[in-house]
Amino acid sequence: MKYDFTYYNPTKIHFGKDALNKLAGELAAYGENVLLVYGKGSVKRTGIYDKVVKILADANKRVTELEGIKPNPSYSQVLEGARLVRENKVDLILAVGGGSVIDCAKGISVSAYCDGDPWTKYWINFEDVTGTIVPVGSVLTMAGTGSEMNGGSVITNEDVMLKNGRVFPSSVYPKFSILDPEFTYTVPKYQMISGIFDTMSHLMEQYFSGDDDNVTDYLLEGLMRSLIVSARKACDNPTDYEARSNIMWAATLGLNTLTGVSKTQDWEVHMIEHQVGAYTDCAHGAALGVISVPYYKYIYKYGVQKFKRFAENVFDIDTAGMSDDEAALKGIDALGAFIKELGIPENLRALGVTEDMLKPIADSAVTGGGYYKMEAEDILKVLKAAF
Amino acid sequence: MKYDFTYYNPTKIHFGKDALNKLAGELAAYGENVLLVYGKGSVKRTGIYDKVVKILADANKRVTELEGIKPNPSYSQVLEGARLVRENKVDLILAVGGGSVIDCAKGISVSAYCDGDPWTKYWINFEDVTGTIVPVGSVLTMAGTGSEMNGGSVITNEDVMLKNGRVFPSSVYPKFSILDPEFTYTVPKYQMISGIFDTMSHLMEQYFSGDDDNVTDYLLEGLMRSLIVSARKACDNPTDYEARSNIMWAATLGLNTLTGVSKTQDWEVHMIEHQVGAYTDCAHGAALGVISVPYYKYIYKYGVQKFKRFAENVFDIDTAGMSDDEAALKGIDALGAFIKELGIPENLRALGVTEDMLKPIADSAVTGGGYYKMEAEDILKVLKAAF
Repeated sequence: MKYDFTYYNPTKIHFGKDALNKLAGELAAYGENVLLVYGKGSVKRTGIYDKVVKILADANKRVTELEGIKPNPSYSQVLEGARLVRENKVDLILAVGGGSVIDCAKGISVSAYCDGDPWTKYWINFEDVTGTIVPVGSVLTMAGTGSEMNGGSVITNEDVMLKNGRVFPSSVYPKFSILDPEFTYTVPKYQMISGIFDTMSHLMEQYFSGDDDNVTDYLLEGLMRSLIVSARKACDNPTDYEARSNIMWAATLGLNTLTGVSKTQDWEVHMIEHQVGAYTDCAHGAALGVISVPYYKYIYKYGVQKFKRFAENVFDIDTAGMSDDEAALKGIDALGAFIKELGIPENLRALGVTEDMLKPIADSAVTGGGYYKMEAEDILKVLKAAF
Repeated sequence: MKYDFTYYNPTKIHFGKDALNKLAGELAAYGENVLLVYGKGSVKRTGIYDKVVKILADANKRVTELEGIKPNPSYSQVLEGARLVRENKVDLILAVGGGSVIDCAKGISVSAYCDGDPWTKYWINFEDVTGTIVPVGSVLTMAGTGSEMNGGSVITNEDVMLKNGRVFPSSVYPKFSILDPEFTYTVPKYQMISGIFDTMSHLMEQYFSGDDDNVTDYLLEGLMRSLIVSARKACDNPTDYEARSNIMWAATLGLNTLTGVSKTQDWEVHMIEHQVGAYTDCAHGAALGVISVPYYKYIYKYGVQKFKRFAENVFDIDTAGMSDDEAALKGIDALGAFIKELGIPENLRALGVTEDMLKPIADSAVTGGGYYKMEAEDILKVLKAAF
């Protein structure tokens, strides 16, 4: 607890097999006009769409739909949603889907009544939110991003070819989110694994910085331990309800700001992956899995005590008799074994990266880090080791 | 994650050395009439009262005071506060003190405009809250109860000699709480230790029930590990800011409902202590420390795997080669050693309990428990072992 912080998270979470039954009660708090936002049809195939539409109809809501939100939601979709909100005097934006759909809903929420150009104001200049914020609620169908309980909104402006993310204040967080772990069964196994490692990476990005004994680091260790146990069970049996529910809740808690308070953080693995994703369109979590071990091997010596602690407290490695370096590397090896066990591809080539991409990726990635400030030449070395 | 749950905690926490600087910003959201509630003068001795009063004056608030809230806040004080709220059209109740003061403020909040008799409605019949709820804010000066971020309100009705607690819904939680760890330095060491063990007990009461791998149990382990490390540092040096801040944050997180979701819980140590406290007026946390080891030795065999896990994951005991019973008992022994290290009295006699009190305490304690349903005769055996 080195730093002053404010913690405030007013999202209400309804969790479990019967969570969707709580939707009607939430809807009662808002006016009759609802904008229903969803993706490219998987919620229709799985029947979740029909269930939600019935609840909306039973609640006598007048529903406008915005469908086809892309995995990387586009700014043009945000503007389209904003127009629909204004035209239909929308009282509630209901996002049904994964993090992309919820990110898009938040973008619509702040853009509908924005003075001036929302892209410039919010995703370029990162200004404070002004004007009416239209309430957002969500029904989550994929675990990993944490968007259901935070202010994150990553939007791609296709006109200028920029993918920018920002964190909106708590007034933009979803007012409520419905988390039924069974809804996540509908995601293919590779996406499940990618989501699991995305969560693991969120936890490590917050953990690998600083070296004090603060509460937050112990919470992160607990979440990592829980996630590892549940991930193994879910890989064996993707419809293990216990495992999928623990993964879903760990994903939410791992990025709802609780696990970041009072800590310096790293996030360099995400910065590198961001550019790998831009060049290949590979699954986000899978690429994080490929980059993590080479990155941590590159920087561990600048935070060796924390990596030793990671070995001991997350992977239960008995480090007695080991040097600090040996202990730290044992922990990173255990992480590597876990990544392999998940079935994440072995290297960047398997994700579609070609050798000529390495330097442009390194040169375009945001530099920084927790224990060591990565520059472009450092990133290139990590990419070569991951290639 | 066996159970459906709703998690919603809308309290805003300002934490750290400069946290009181955030008070003015919070006050701006409320009308001019403030009821300032505090205890028997320690906030005046420590200067916290003067700081708060100056901030209120600078914000042009019209302040009414209710002082002298007892460690077990009385219902007559709740009614007195409710009258002051009505007479002065109070817009915000600001509690400055420990859990008792905040508990009392919540009681005032729901009683001021209650239809009918608040005691009967809220603390006897546990009815839902109706009528206007007056917002509560807090400046916390003692860590342990968690009242700063939950709906708990334990009130003693001196007319009928009943001490009843209840948990109000989130609409009654403090809207904001100011947590400056340095404010907790003003508490005597024995009270600090009692607060630390109160928090440890809250964590164990939630942990020792059920046996699944759920996220919540891992979070509880993390909080216990953190608390043990910080408690040792704080005992060596009570003005170790890092340690005191970690203790304060762990106390809040340990009882803000996050660590209880989706789990069965125990709470039998608290039920027994409740009656020990009624007979002796001893420090709550100290009595929990005296009762815990005999209680857990009495019931561990009904949840032996969880006690083994406690030994391994909380006290880092290598249980290889041990039977489950041995491993479980090693963990309870480690807990006993920790209690001794804290300097908690060795037995009930040292807390003022006499032999003739044992049976009445056992007979009056609420029976129940996590792994084993305690009856009066079981409780008596535990009390004799703790005597």
